[in-house]
Amino acid sequence: MKLARDGKITKEMEIVAENENLDSEFIRKGIAKGRIIIPKSNRRNTKPLGIGEGLLVKINANVGSSKTVCDLENEVEKAKIAEKFGADTIMDLSSGIKESDVKNIRKRILEEIKIPLGIVPIYQSALRAIEHKGAIIHLDEDDLFNVIEEQAKEGVDFFTIHVGVTKEIVNYLIDHPRTMGVVSRGGTFLAAWILHNEQENPFNEKYDYLLEMAQEYDFTLSLGDGMRPGGIADSTDYAQIRELMEISKLVKRAWNANIQVMVEGPGHIPAHEIEHNIKIQKSLCDGAPFYVLGPLTTDIAPGYDHIVSAIGGTLAGLAGADYLCYVTPSEHLGLPNKEEVKRGVIASKIAAHTVNIARYGKRASKIDYKMDIARKNLNWKKMIDYSIDPELAREIHSRSGETDDDEGCSMCGELCAIKMLRDALEQKRE
Amino acid sequence: MKLARDGKITKEMEIVAENENLDSEFIRKGIAKGRIIIPKSNRRNTKPLGIGEGLLVKINANVGSSKTVCDLENEVEKAKIAEKFGADTIMDLSSGIKESDVKNIRKRILEEIKIPLGIVPIYQSALRAIEHKGAIIHLDEDDLFNVIEEQAKEGVDFFTIHVGVTKEIVNYLIDHPRTMGVVSRGGTFLAAWILHNEQENPFNEKYDYLLEMAQEYDFTLSLGDGMRPGGIADSTDYAQIRELMEISKLVKRAWNANIQVMVEGPGHIPAHEIEHNIKIQKSLCDGAPFYVLGPLTTDIAPGYDHIVSAIGGTLAGLAGADYLCYVTPSEHLGLPNKEEVKRGVIASKIAAHTVNIARYGKRASKIDYKMDIARKNLNWKKMIDYSIDPELAREIHSRSGETDDDEGCSMCGELCAIKMLRDALEQKRE
Repeated sequence: MKLARDGKITKEMEIVAENENLDSEFIRKGIAKGRIIIPKSNRRNTKPLGIGEGLLVKINANVGSSKTVCDLENEVEKAKIAEKFGADTIMDLSSGIKESDVKNIRKRILEEIKIPLGIVPIYQSALRAIEHKGAIIHLDEDDLFNVIEEQAKEGVDFFTIHVGVTKEIVNYLIDHPRTMGVVSRGGTFLAAWILHNEQENPFNEKYDYLLEMAQEYDFTLSLGDGMRPGGIADSTDYAQIRELMEISKLVKRAWNANIQVMVEGPGHIPAHEIEHNIKIQKSLCDGAPFYVLGPLTTDIAPGYDHIVSAIGGTLAGLAGADYLCYVTPSEHLGLPNKEEVKRGVIASKIAAHTVNIARYGKRASKIDYKMDIARKNLNWKKMIDYSIDPELAREIHSRSGETDDDEGCSMCGELCAIKMLRDALEQKRE
Repeated sequence: MKLARDGKITKEMEIVAENENLDSEFIRKGIAKGRIIIPKSNRRNTKPLGIGEGLLVKINANVGSSKTVCDLENEVEKAKIAEKFGADTIMDLSSGIKESDVKNIRKRILEEIKIPLGIVPIYQSALRAIEHKGAIIHLDEDDLFNVIEEQAKEGVDFFTIHVGVTKEIVNYLIDHPRTMGVVSRGGTFLAAWILHNEQENPFNEKYDYLLEMAQEYDFTLSLGDGMRPGGIADSTDYAQIRELMEISKLVKRAWNANIQVMVEGPGHIPAHEIEHNIKIQKSLCDGAPFYVLGPLTTDIAPGYDHIVSAIGGTLAGLAGADYLCYVTPSEHLGLPNKEEVKRGVIASKIAAHTVNIARYGKRASKIDYKMDIARKNLNWKKMIDYSIDPELAREIHSRSGETDDDEGCSMCGELCAIKMLRDALEQKRE
């Protein structure tokens, strides 16, 4: 950010400009204003990726172990699948049983993937506190900041930190219970810590120290939304917006320190509240990139939350969100398996692509036009090649014994509408 | 419609009012104005279902055989699965090899399902023309109208008729080719017929006769969109809107004859064009119920078009569409199997429910609030019961060896955010 403000166009900016078919000066200006970020550690050689105003909407896939599901190679596989099917970034949310498990998974993922990696560092801090002090509420500032430094040295590109979970907001919840309480894990750890220790959130109090660390390792800050609603019953409530207002101040402090920053957003939001959620964030945070988790527009579809999230993500993107966090079919039920990771990535990509077409027209829809022409020509080989998941498309198409070479298809057989009128019109034109 | 205009509230109106939690006078007025329909034949005893302004958004599932996939019992099974998972109506789009196959499938479906059934009668007419006269272009008025009468006598509740495909529009296409041409099968048959015979669309010319038949059998007309775009390259073009304008005139002629009518709409439409597509229909057609096919916001996701359609259906519903036709994962690739029918129905229901929450708040979201409370209490049994697909939810949840009785889950294990802060806040409140 410092370089962009000094008027310098870095190699990373050039690569982003090329990938987006934009001018590198556009990228530089966006970074200088804080409206574009390139989350990239100076310790690891990832593909530069731009997120923010005027750029294509990007998607993130979460992977990570938990206490009952902890298989290192499986999590690495999931990260690779997510990358293969088009995730722009990965977040490793491993918690696991032991701190050492979490470290090992992260190291392997950092080795295996070429796209930016994000982390919620408090998960590892929490495990350290449990292992050494018996409970999360006993963690101290060192447990929080040392873990970030350790992870930054390894090359983590961006960090979700719940700086906006303040003592004031947590105390407010005592007298004003929500239906779902707090569902962000990082937010909860801090809220529980604040309640027990009767002290301010250390990330908030020592925010300048966090900014110094971000300068040193050139990581990007993602300001986590610890108060995001956990169900539509709590959507767009006082706690959520109060935290966003706190975050908006911290965005500007990051910019003053030349630190790249993005803002995380909800969560469970009914469809008619999504647009104003995005617009209030953009207004309060002066156009800082907005990273949304979902949003989920209904709570009754576990097993299908990737679809719900594709709906909510589209609405958010149409209103201005820049970066969508995927949701898998197993959300609210258990950790995803590899197939569910793939489905989550594809659903999220469909949402992002839908938004990109709406925002940018042919800059995004060239591939759709190619598909249309392949369909018109009943060219099955090309139709399958242009598909978001060619393997699945081929599998379904070939189910009724057809090959890529057949004209027409099992849906209409001889009654193929495309062929019939194409031929009739061509006769008339002759 | 006649009864509603005479101020009479029928048993059907009362049932619809009760199902929607509305006053029966509201339903009567809506029907009298043409803004609500209850598609129900007087020959069959289906559950009365309301579609239109002020009512919950409904969904339709298509089933039906084709030349290469033709298994009577399989199509009946699909219809039953669609009904089980919440389709509000079924359309049987069977074409098959022989006219007799199509009749047999329809008869069995009429016996087996309790929800309204719709048909595109020209498919059977086309088969009859092929069998008896060698080609679709040789069909005559009798082939068209006799089939409708036959189907109406059996109790079909609504008919999709492409009355808006006029000679003028078809001739326009000769000099102004579209990328995808015409992809509606019924529309294509008529367009090819018009081109070959150089005559006007018989449904359009003899529209009054169609209205008389609708009076006699009390079926509902669904004015099909033969010119719907087959790819986003053709969205919202001259042919599409010209047909809509023709249809808008035919809506009013139906109302003058006291015939219930709805309008079908696109199709492949990018996200930023959906809202004005819905609003122009509502304006031109004086608020007649709008039934959309999709819309699909990108063309590159065969295998996942149920998700694309859930996105487009949501956007359409938010803009005012009343009735969504599902799309299955196998759209553009082949006929759906039973699992794909189920997935298509659920994706479409998620879209409709998302819209209903946005439009009607708690009238639609009570079940979501119940889910939120079950989640807060970590009550897995209830969480599964309130799910849109309890079987799948249970299957995913139990994968890591958990039962409905466990508190917490495999996602966070001991780090369960909900439990941790709930306990900490409760301590403070004591």
